[in-house]
Amino acid sequence: MKVSEIGEFGLIGHITEAIGKAENPPGVSGENLLIGIGDDAAVWSTAIGLELATTDSLVQGTHFDLKTTSWIDLGWKAVAVNLSDIAAMGGIPRYALVSLTLPGDLDVDFVASLYKGMLRIANEFGISIVGGNVTASRIVTIAITIIGDADGKAVLTRTAAVPGDLVAITGYTGLSAAGLRLLKRRRPVEGDAAQVLQQAHLRPMPRISEGQALLHHNVKAAIDISDGLVADLSHVCKASGVDARINENMVPLHPALKAAFKKNAMKLALSGGEDYELLFTAPPQIVEQVKQDLTCPVTVIGEITRGKSCRVHLVDASGDIVSLQQTGWDHFRPQV
Amino acid sequence: MKVSEIGEFGLIGHITEAIGKAENPPGVSGENLLIGIGDDAAVWSTAIGLELATTDSLVQGTHFDLKTTSWIDLGWKAVAVNLSDIAAMGGIPRYALVSLTLPGDLDVDFVASLYKGMLRIANEFGISIVGGNVTASRIVTIAITIIGDADGKAVLTRTAAVPGDLVAITGYTGLSAAGLRLLKRRRPVEGDAAQVLQQAHLRPMPRISEGQALLHHNVKAAIDISDGLVADLSHVCKASGVDARINENMVPLHPALKAAFKKNAMKLALSGGEDYELLFTAPPQIVEQVKQDLTCPVTVIGEITRGKSCRVHLVDASGDIVSLQQTGWDHFRPQV
Repeated sequence: MKVSEIGEFGLIGHITEAIGKAENPPGVSGENLLIGIGDDAAVWSTAIGLELATTDSLVQGTHFDLKTTSWIDLGWKAVAVNLSDIAAMGGIPRYALVSLTLPGDLDVDFVASLYKGMLRIANEFGISIVGGNVTASRIVTIAITIIGDADGKAVLTRTAAVPGDLVAITGYTGLSAAGLRLLKRRRPVEGDAAQVLQQAHLRPMPRISEGQALLHHNVKAAIDISDGLVADLSHVCKASGVDARINENMVPLHPALKAAFKKNAMKLALSGGEDYELLFTAPPQIVEQVKQDLTCPVTVIGEITRGKSCRVHLVDASGDIVSLQQTGWDHFRPQV
Repeated sequence: MKVSEIGEFGLIGHITEAIGKAENPPGVSGENLLIGIGDDAAVWSTAIGLELATTDSLVQGTHFDLKTTSWIDLGWKAVAVNLSDIAAMGGIPRYALVSLTLPGDLDVDFVASLYKGMLRIANEFGISIVGGNVTASRIVTIAITIIGDADGKAVLTRTAAVPGDLVAITGYTGLSAAGLRLLKRRRPVEGDAAQVLQQAHLRPMPRISEGQALLHHNVKAAIDISDGLVADLSHVCKASGVDARINENMVPLHPALKAAFKKNAMKLALSGGEDYELLFTAPPQIVEQVKQDLTCPVTVIGEITRGKSCRVHLVDASGDIVSLQQTGWDHFRPQV
């Protein structure tokens, strides 16, 4: 059986099972581990609190095309996608390590620009790049690990959604996928809307302070929207053992998205991916507090329901429940 | 200017300089950082002690060939090379994260074997694999990050060698490079010597407990031998601002290496690479204590000398000082 047959999430399932079956190591690391594979970041306890770590990589040809991305944007994004995983747990990022593979005939100035982008976002979020390695390869791969901690004794998880919770998101979705479509066009697309969408794709802004605010408001369940709104809500449903309903007419559409993609705006908002917004679930009164506290838009788009299918049901504009096929990004199963 | 023109270490120099020039982030991460880029692992202080993190990757075509390496061995080695960096600081490894890129048409069983190898060495050293990600790519890349801590308030560093220190190594060098040469031959090489050498290449055993013992004996300077004995001693010389002398007739040659590579045994021992032994420098009385305490061979091979060339001088069997050309591994400058 090939990896492409079971897909990214099937493979992760296989790996998680193998690790779960493996003998627990005798040291203290196993005992202190609170969250292992399966959430946005790993979490363990120390004598003074909780620590978090996450790793994610950008691969040439899979995640980026050097024709449509500058090296400085690439550096920014490689760090941003990892910060977003820390944000999804409500964590405070501290240190980053960079594992780089690149061809020997690459210009050194490009590598310098890549680091410029990484350092810019590192400074923006107060983290230090403390280590890494570079090695030769035919293609560029940027694997980043971020280590952080969390205030208090809890983090946001995918497993804590319960029936009755509202489902809410920060900001808007679909912008990044829309921006990528514009970037892929042969002729550069001008105008403010295009600018907003392309920027969303090239320079995502992780919701670090928002994640911490969710934790302070006693939100329990969250995920960052990297695979697509419906796909990431599905991950929450599977991890929490619940169903969910999204009301299409509650999903916020950014004016730039509506301006540039009239017909496909909703489709992009539901399944675009790479948004790096936060999706969270909480009782109505907590969602209300969060809305009042955060400066970014917070929109309720549906609710968590009792159910064992662990699926997301979409109620369209006319009130019909739409069956959802594949609605997110799987690296080994490119979208149709 | 291309990366291959300045090489791996030239590029790391560029990156380190860029990060050094970058504004220090305002958060606590910068203030608590003790060792950043340039040593085997990053080190920072917390309220309860020191934490360490390191990352290293194995890339198909650069570090391994699936014709000569099994998936289970590959998993073992990918973790081992990172553990070795923790060993070089005298640290205690705790948690591992795995960032994997692989082609979609790869058999799932191979990935399972890869994880089997990783889990085997993880259990051997009491660490937990707590997170990671998988993504599609044309080539297999395994980037691993290990996070650990250290007893007390100090770690072993590359920067602490001083004139008058003896230079010593654990175990034997050159075995791994010799093993790789045998594995590359068309016909499998039989016999005990071949077995020892190939095993050294495929299943390196990081010196974790030895690194911790060095720290307890008050050794200050160490590095793991990954690029080659002379090359790694050169890294220590550069970082510490000293020269060093190796006496060729003091360099231990493993019987298997002598048996299989009569003529080239010394060359392989001096510059083979991927040994994952520890090289350390310390005053004679401390080296003596270490020799008595450790169960593995510990051999003095030379000494640290005053000098500003930051070079390693090799005294050959007839007492002549040999000038050393390239004597180690640089990913962007394949050896001649």
